[in-house]
Amino acid sequence: MRTSQLYLNTLKEAPSEAELTSHKLMVRAGLIKKLGSGLYTWMPLGMRVLRKVEEIVRDEMNAAGAQEMLMPTIQPAELWQETGRWALFGPQMLKIKDRHERDFCFGPTHEEVITDIARSELRSYKQLPVNMYQVQVKFRDEIRPRFGVMRAREFVMKDAYSFDADFAGLQVSYDKMYTAYSNIFTRLGLKFRAVAADTGAIGGDGSHEFQVLADAGEDILAYAPDSDYAANVELAEALAPVTPRAAAAEALRDIDTPKQTTCEAVAELMGIGIERTVKLIALVNNDGKFIVALLRGDHSLNEVKLGKVSGVGEFRFATEDEIRARFNCPPGFLGPVGIDADILVVADRSVAVMSDFVCGANKPKFHIAGVNFGRDLPEPNAVADIRNVVSGDPSPDGKGKLELCRGIEVGHIFQLRTKYSEAMNATFVGEDGQPKFFEMGCYGIGVSRIVAAAIEQNYDERGIIFTQAMAPFAIAVVAVGYHRSEAVKAAADQLYADLKAVGVDVLLDDRNERPGSMFADMELIGIPHRITIGDKGLADGMVEYVARAGGEMQKVALADAVSFARKQLG
Amino acid sequence: MRTSQLYLNTLKEAPSEAELTSHKLMVRAGLIKKLGSGLYTWMPLGMRVLRKVEEIVRDEMNAAGAQEMLMPTIQPAELWQETGRWALFGPQMLKIKDRHERDFCFGPTHEEVITDIARSELRSYKQLPVNMYQVQVKFRDEIRPRFGVMRAREFVMKDAYSFDADFAGLQVSYDKMYTAYSNIFTRLGLKFRAVAADTGAIGGDGSHEFQVLADAGEDILAYAPDSDYAANVELAEALAPVTPRAAAAEALRDIDTPKQTTCEAVAELMGIGIERTVKLIALVNNDGKFIVALLRGDHSLNEVKLGKVSGVGEFRFATEDEIRARFNCPPGFLGPVGIDADILVVADRSVAVMSDFVCGANKPKFHIAGVNFGRDLPEPNAVADIRNVVSGDPSPDGKGKLELCRGIEVGHIFQLRTKYSEAMNATFVGEDGQPKFFEMGCYGIGVSRIVAAAIEQNYDERGIIFTQAMAPFAIAVVAVGYHRSEAVKAAADQLYADLKAVGVDVLLDDRNERPGSMFADMELIGIPHRITIGDKGLADGMVEYVARAGGEMQKVALADAVSFARKQLG
Repeated sequence: MRTSQLYLNTLKEAPSEAELTSHKLMVRAGLIKKLGSGLYTWMPLGMRVLRKVEEIVRDEMNAAGAQEMLMPTIQPAELWQETGRWALFGPQMLKIKDRHERDFCFGPTHEEVITDIARSELRSYKQLPVNMYQVQVKFRDEIRPRFGVMRAREFVMKDAYSFDADFAGLQVSYDKMYTAYSNIFTRLGLKFRAVAADTGAIGGDGSHEFQVLADAGEDILAYAPDSDYAANVELAEALAPVTPRAAAAEALRDIDTPKQTTCEAVAELMGIGIERTVKLIALVNNDGKFIVALLRGDHSLNEVKLGKVSGVGEFRFATEDEIRARFNCPPGFLGPVGIDADILVVADRSVAVMSDFVCGANKPKFHIAGVNFGRDLPEPNAVADIRNVVSGDPSPDGKGKLELCRGIEVGHIFQLRTKYSEAMNATFVGEDGQPKFFEMGCYGIGVSRIVAAAIEQNYDERGIIFTQAMAPFAIAVVAVGYHRSEAVKAAADQLYADLKAVGVDVLLDDRNERPGSMFADMELIGIPHRITIGDKGLADGMVEYVARAGGEMQKVALADAVSFARKQLG
Repeated sequence: MRTSQLYLNTLKEAPSEAELTSHKLMVRAGLIKKLGSGLYTWMPLGMRVLRKVEEIVRDEMNAAGAQEMLMPTIQPAELWQETGRWALFGPQMLKIKDRHERDFCFGPTHEEVITDIARSELRSYKQLPVNMYQVQVKFRDEIRPRFGVMRAREFVMKDAYSFDADFAGLQVSYDKMYTAYSNIFTRLGLKFRAVAADTGAIGGDGSHEFQVLADAGEDILAYAPDSDYAANVELAEALAPVTPRAAAAEALRDIDTPKQTTCEAVAELMGIGIERTVKLIALVNNDGKFIVALLRGDHSLNEVKLGKVSGVGEFRFATEDEIRARFNCPPGFLGPVGIDADILVVADRSVAVMSDFVCGANKPKFHIAGVNFGRDLPEPNAVADIRNVVSGDPSPDGKGKLELCRGIEVGHIFQLRTKYSEAMNATFVGEDGQPKFFEMGCYGIGVSRIVAAAIEQNYDERGIIFTQAMAPFAIAVVAVGYHRSEAVKAAADQLYADLKAVGVDVLLDDRNERPGSMFADMELIGIPHRITIGDKGLADGMVEYVARAGGEMQKVALADAVSFARKQLG
């Protein structure tokens, strides 16, 4: 395509409301345009990117044996009432009444509809497995939509649903989707990790999130650079230390800490490493029982992990009044020595192997040092993994050490099991002639969100850096002086035609603009490769090549430009 | 693809509510499945058809220089209030309140949104012309949705919008779309006509409907088989007769017609052709003025044409009481002779050239014959084309005679002119530096409706007959005995692989079903070509070919099957 034929409208300034880089750049590059809160139009340039993503998604879904279909966006309330989600989904669901005052919603997801289809269509185990997907606009009425298409109200999603006769079948279907998703994000050229995830409100058992690694992500991931291990930081296991507890070597002694109410401050005062301190976190569970969690000073409590320790259950942080009443001591100086025996003491695994440690003295303005389990206080009631992993922890798969990074969720796969088939009485006749509930999986990709996530991962001060698979055009040919130099026009038109002839998705910038403005536009919109044709180079039969991602400008003979470009495009 | 991998679920019976053939066949073939009133899921087999149509539409739109984009389905009420259509659109518009109680609608069309985009994006004549389109789900809350996807509430539409600096530019944009639409329906393999259309509620001037010719159509078209002339029957011009009025030859005389209240009955009684009779239709216009329209007995009144005659304007049919009061005669015996001079008499052109005609006598139970203008009654106040054309009328373009047929509207192109740009104050700066309103066009295609319309045009008692461009698969290879004959399995697998290798969209029916059932399925779902492989033929190295559209079964050497199939596929 030629820029003279392309609707291209770049902006110098981003809207003031845009906080995220991807939001700013997508608006500035003219990929999207805001219609209302959380509502965006995909302009022609953005649509090219969106459709490239869509087609890769389709291609890999088809290759994995999933079949495309299209369900209505508008769904009858009755189906949602069967699963109870009509009430549960909350105000994110856009509820609608039609002209006959019947209740509908704009589908935020399609488990109910597909289960309704399955229960009338799939009658026998012989028809299984089945996996169907659609690429469709969804609506979720976010209370504060922001970040452009990253968290819009209306967005494009690929949602797939699998139906299997048994759990083993579901696992096969699930693994195929895991592989398909990995292929999709690999083909899109993104750095990503599949992380084991909490299944949340949608229910079910196994689940993985596919996260694009980017600093702007809302989720923090723990991953092993040396393997494919990755998990949400809340779910990553902190392995038990391999070194056993050393014998007590120091005497118990008071440390005067008049203003030191944190482990950091105490360690600094004493000139020791913070990893030699222990902090106490006071909690009250739903039965009203007091619980103290013991963590190393440099670690943080993982509430999900603690909740799973026997005898803990749901809990909350103790109030200052509760702490003073129970410990006879203000927060900041609490410690495990000498506390009531009916308090449940849960020590993190890393605390359980400590000796001669430092902790609060349970009296105002004092800590104690040389503390040892067994000698100065009883062994903890429970020892468990109750902390968040930190960078440098060993990877749970035994392969190297963990790193932390941020991620943007762009895909999510779930084993729904029989949650929906039971709720909606969706059965098939099994091999034994008996009715059975479908084993279901659901598999989502935020197609429009991928574009924003990719930009968060790949940009610089000049704009977007698209990977080749997603770029609106693979290569830009910038013709400097197209409207005044016959030689430039002839060379540019010929190169454009030659590249198109070999199937290259090329944009010829044939505008009558200053070179700097043309370069800036091609850089802002993120075209990965650029060839510049100008009179000066042409005098020697040369053109210039530069990669958007960086690297030196190279001079290339015009006669070799097509083969050179194809080589760059891989 | 193999049927063992394809979700295929054909039904013996159509749902009882299905009236149209296409609705019955689409459900029976498993192309669509009903979710609720006017809400259909496109099942995998139907989705293949829908996507083939979509891609041809995209391809031709892109070739015509239109650029794909995607606007939100959910639109803010404010934009519709600017044009007044928030109130005017009526209950077909699905109105929605979001969680903040703000008003939105599920877009039934996108003129308001695109005009809002244009007024902020397109600032100069240098940016024009622009034509943008989207392929998107629309919702129109039909009061009685029926006919399956032919008149569903939620449907897939391609809508395009052009912006030009002046009317000449709009005409160029419009002509490009006219050509693109003609290309689309030609490539889809459909018999269609572009007909000049009334612009209706959307406003504007020039407009064409693209109609697929099929007996089930709701619209009646007049077309010339010898040219590309076509029009809605209401808009087709009835040319003036070329033969002048003959001189009066008969005397005026009463005819006793005690029970004959119609031209048909009078002509039959008299033993003359109905084309020698004249009927009078009594009307009252908005000013309360009486009007009589004179038409040949075999013609019907065209109210739109009559309304355009000077002095007529908007009108209604006179009531029986008004007729009796004014003519002193009951309906059924009215005639133009002797009526009050202040009644406006409008004669159709075909009546104006009649002589010695028969009409009502203006007295009960009598008609009169030998009636002549000038002698028995004054010349009419106006002579105009006020009738609907009939089969055999000369074509307005002078090329042969008109035929009537039914059509299904699948596309519609409009010259909106400045209706929306004026209502929304959407201007650009013209070449003279002055602000100007955009000259707009809009161009719709009912993508999902095309599938139903194509089936209405092409089916037989065995099911759908898809054209090759739309078929879910181009060719079916039916392997009879795939699960019991090694030879059949080997030959079928090889032919399947060979056809796929040369890019043929082939379905291998590898099911363990009776041959009759496999043939019936392939015929029902409309696959245009079929090759059957069975042990009997293979013994002689032969397979069988048959075209879905008809024709004899042919024996083909297995060794030649690929080249034979490619030849059939064209």
